[in-house]
Amino acid sequence: MNLIENLKWRYAAKAMNGEKVSQDKIDRILEAVRLAPTSSGLQPFEVMVITNQEIKEKIKPVAWNQSTVTDCSHLLVFAAWDTYTKERINHMFDLTNEIRGFKNEGWENYRQQLLNSYPQKDAEENFNHAAKQAYIGLAHALMAAAEEKVDSVPMEGFDADAVDKILGLREKGLRSAVLLPIGYREASEDWLSDLIKVRKPMEELVTVID
Amino acid sequence: MNLIENLKWRYAAKAMNGEKVSQDKIDRILEAVRLAPTSSGLQPFEVMVITNQEIKEKIKPVAWNQSTVTDCSHLLVFAAWDTYTKERINHMFDLTNEIRGFKNEGWENYRQQLLNSYPQKDAEENFNHAAKQAYIGLAHALMAAAEEKVDSVPMEGFDADAVDKILGLREKGLRSAVLLPIGYREASEDWLSDLIKVRKPMEELVTVID
Repeated sequence: MNLIENLKWRYAAKAMNGEKVSQDKIDRILEAVRLAPTSSGLQPFEVMVITNQEIKEKIKPVAWNQSTVTDCSHLLVFAAWDTYTKERINHMFDLTNEIRGFKNEGWENYRQQLLNSYPQKDAEENFNHAAKQAYIGLAHALMAAAEEKVDSVPMEGFDADAVDKILGLREKGLRSAVLLPIGYREASEDWLSDLIKVRKPMEELVTVID
Repeated sequence: MNLIENLKWRYAAKAMNGEKVSQDKIDRILEAVRLAPTSSGLQPFEVMVITNQEIKEKIKPVAWNQSTVTDCSHLLVFAAWDTYTKERINHMFDLTNEIRGFKNEGWENYRQQLLNSYPQKDAEENFNHAAKQAYIGLAHALMAAAEEKVDSVPMEGFDADAVDKILGLREKGLRSAVLLPIGYREASEDWLSDLIKVRKPMEELVTVID
């Protein structure tokens, strides 16, 4: 089945049945996230993969009591860097040199350019930028899950500070950006499951300039 | 070929050969963008699809003179809503009711909740939120292009205000968020094309909490 068919199949599952998603499917979903392209290749986010039921129960009340937080199989928390630091930038450039086995002058100049811009910017601006990259990762997870016929529901309705505290994210220089419960739909309890998918018509989305 | 293989195939093509991408491929890429899930289903962005060479030439100098801006087949500009307004929120809820053919009390309550929150927020905060949704659309375009064996390169290095002026976006209540030249790689001119894809190892990306 191709991407568009998978995208038509998927929907924001509002009820899940607690069934576990197999490890091989989770591995492929996370690999799709890992392969997501990000600005300057910095991959400025991490993913907490929560199966611990007690932690899920703690998060539920700070996420509008949405049932999928606890009834999902795996709760993914996309946590973006709280800012860009010299260490973080250098780490990714060093990793690149290590993997490719050589230094490139243009690439090193680009490293200096980033070192001279990001760390001097406001942390909030940097976090917002990093969070956008995390959303690319989120989209990869959504699409990979759909390919695996696994349900998922992106969730912005949560108290980010509270989730950060529960998971100790701030101490790691991270801030929660978006949640993604992954599991299997409980269609009988989900008012949304039988409804037609609504999207803007193409002419409202796209303007052709030719 | 599956999603992960497509993701391994794709890379940020830094040189393109000017060859045209066929309309059926473009249509499928845009359909993937249209199907992208967004917060509350609002789809708070539009996509300018530019094939006009003069317009591309105008954008190039305000996009660090990157050659793919003019050598691509189609230049996609993801433009996010400058803010959330009552009209925009109502339009999407009305469209939903029209397509589904009925009103739902819970859904109407949710409409009121959004009407009572988004339009009162700071426009910059709303734009940032809308831009994150546009990045979900961007990721869908990337992956759909890869499935079509079409190259693409997400581009944040541009002067957003200048692009907004060239395309008259502000007058439409839009602001450019990210560019995506789409086309075919000119591997012989692209230093990046033969290099190993670099990504963090899984253990740096993922923390399992079980």
